[in-house]
Amino acid sequence: MDFQARLSRLANVCVKVGVNVQPGQELIVTAPLEASAFVQQIARSAYQCGSPLVTCLYDDPQLIRDRFEFADEVSLDHPPTWVYQRVADALAQGAARLYVAGPYPDLLTGIAADKIVRVHRAIALASNAESALTAASRINWSAVPFVTRSWAKQVFPDLPGDEAVRALWDAVFEVTRVDSADPCAAWDEHNLTLKARREALQSRQFAALRCFDGRTDLTVGLIDGHRWIGGTVVAANGVEGTCNIPTEEVFTSPHSAGTEGHVHFSRPLALAGALVENLYVEFREGRVTAAKADRGLDTFEALIASDEGARRLGEIGLVPNRSKISDTGLLFYSALFDENAASHLAFGQSYSACVLPDASDPSRPDRGANQSALHIDGMFGQASMNVDGVSRDGHVTPIMRGGDFVI
Amino acid sequence: MDFQARLSRLANVCVKVGVNVQPGQELIVTAPLEASAFVQQIARSAYQCGSPLVTCLYDDPQLIRDRFEFADEVSLDHPPTWVYQRVADALAQGAARLYVAGPYPDLLTGIAADKIVRVHRAIALASNAESALTAASRINWSAVPFVTRSWAKQVFPDLPGDEAVRALWDAVFEVTRVDSADPCAAWDEHNLTLKARREALQSRQFAALRCFDGRTDLTVGLIDGHRWIGGTVVAANGVEGTCNIPTEEVFTSPHSAGTEGHVHFSRPLALAGALVENLYVEFREGRVTAAKADRGLDTFEALIASDEGARRLGEIGLVPNRSKISDTGLLFYSALFDENAASHLAFGQSYSACVLPDASDPSRPDRGANQSALHIDGMFGQASMNVDGVSRDGHVTPIMRGGDFVI
Repeated sequence: MDFQARLSRLANVCVKVGVNVQPGQELIVTAPLEASAFVQQIARSAYQCGSPLVTCLYDDPQLIRDRFEFADEVSLDHPPTWVYQRVADALAQGAARLYVAGPYPDLLTGIAADKIVRVHRAIALASNAESALTAASRINWSAVPFVTRSWAKQVFPDLPGDEAVRALWDAVFEVTRVDSADPCAAWDEHNLTLKARREALQSRQFAALRCFDGRTDLTVGLIDGHRWIGGTVVAANGVEGTCNIPTEEVFTSPHSAGTEGHVHFSRPLALAGALVENLYVEFREGRVTAAKADRGLDTFEALIASDEGARRLGEIGLVPNRSKISDTGLLFYSALFDENAASHLAFGQSYSACVLPDASDPSRPDRGANQSALHIDGMFGQASMNVDGVSRDGHVTPIMRGGDFVI
Repeated sequence: MDFQARLSRLANVCVKVGVNVQPGQELIVTAPLEASAFVQQIARSAYQCGSPLVTCLYDDPQLIRDRFEFADEVSLDHPPTWVYQRVADALAQGAARLYVAGPYPDLLTGIAADKIVRVHRAIALASNAESALTAASRINWSAVPFVTRSWAKQVFPDLPGDEAVRALWDAVFEVTRVDSADPCAAWDEHNLTLKARREALQSRQFAALRCFDGRTDLTVGLIDGHRWIGGTVVAANGVEGTCNIPTEEVFTSPHSAGTEGHVHFSRPLALAGALVENLYVEFREGRVTAAKADRGLDTFEALIASDEGARRLGEIGLVPNRSKISDTGLLFYSALFDENAASHLAFGQSYSACVLPDASDPSRPDRGANQSALHIDGMFGQASMNVDGVSRDGHVTPIMRGGDFVI
């Protein structure tokens, strides 16, 4: 199959399985400039599903970098409120949302970490209303990858540019099931597997998860009334979509004060343009008390210092060590892939959709779920990892052994 | 001088002479995808002027065409309200605005005129708040050209693609004074000439203008308390900018019921993707009563039928027959150029900045200025054109003879 045909199939998966655009529903896409040919395929697919209007907000990476180089430093805290607020309004009025994520890992090389953090924080504040709508599954939305030249070069540093781009697209098409005979049917089947896993965990309502191997021993307390999410999500508007393409994970919300122990992150974290390698973190009463890394520690520490919730956990996701993503053997340096290649934790904001409504105590709608302007994923899963579910009475149920599900 | 240096000079003219971006002022740019290198120069220049944030809303021409081809026809009336409303919000809160106009004359070839009109009307309604802010000079804004391949091919149909693009850029750089020793100083001098012309007309307060040559005899009644505009404008926010780069015109607002006679348009009108050639129009009591054209009459008639004001005049602009633009000898098929190459009329919306406040009759703030969702320019000026100013007592003052100013 030629490249355009595969790209068109990926656009169909995004629109039909990912967002599941409904007749009469506007679609708002964000994408980098270099993805315009893909966006055009997405728009065609959405129009064929009955969307009246597809709007793409194109990101220009060069403009992002130039602001750091040419704007007055004091202006980096200036919040781009209007850019995000109207998108939130449109979503609240019924639009669907698609994020085409094209990473530019070398974009901010040489820019000081504290400047990057300031811009990230201003954007996070400005986009708060939008993030709240998607995180709480108020609307149908999805995120999907796009191979940029910059990203391909990072994943395949030894290949010439065009070959690296081709090789990364091959991997993306493989893990997004585009090369299956019927990609949408393959997704339906995969989503059923994730549903069975999430329902098995959901019915147990473990008090905590203990993750352990030779280098990690971490107990993550879960909130009372947590919800496991994975595969499809039925949003509050009634539309069933798949928020991440690809996805292999089931995940839920820790209690913000319930994590104890230490964890070694098995893969680098790609944060604000920097790589954090071999990160090791200790927790007490839910809070980071110490951190070490071979590289990028300053970026990690600057980010988790940006508010109190950034020092605490907002997500734990479980992923089998063998999956379409981990079978590629690649490190993608992208949360959308790597968090689906291995079990992971996230510092910062919880997904409010992971918290069941609590009729008995309306004064604590969050039930201890974490609050932050940030959400930073880090992978700790690997072939040696074990996970136990610990019930309220101390009973232990094996969930994963040697990196694979046993529940 | 190489192309990048000239493009950078044009960006400087846009930012400093056109918009006149102020320290602390956000800049919102609209541009086609293919103009991204130019937008990056604009952003650098704006950041150097102290702007805290430059945001570009990129237009993707292919998405515009694909909507006509793939969306359900009924959805063409769907107004993209949020897309425009958020920009209006930002402008009302202090941002400046720059439109990078890159024409795509062949974009909508084969699409039915009535469909195009429906989409235009929906956009005009949705962008009403923004248009009101710019038309009334509430904020500093500017429009500037960008040479697309599609446009270059239209202007130079006999040249190969790359040569056509080069030739049109040469013309654009010439008329935007980029090749002057000091482009911004050349603009300051030119703007002083336009200021002298507009003040001479302003002080006369003619009751009407009579435009006549062998094929045209049209009397355009002006509103009481009209204002002539040309060169720089001091917006309500106190910032002095130049709304069009290039500009050669002085213009004001007719009374919506005050036009009598007939006019032959000396250049084609480029409307909604179609060309209207050899247009001839008759007026009675301000209203179009008959129209003829060699080509494109259906598009013109569909547009002026879209509301009552679209059948009436909202602008008359006077331009000498010899100017940097007309000296190129080119037909640009773009209002930004052609309306500055020759005297012109516009059907539809008046510029509210052309109406002086009327303290004696607050019930008629518009004083008979025209209202419409549309604004369609057409050129009638040529080497044979004469214009007289007619005062309230019938006294006649020659303004232009044989295409040139004599006032």
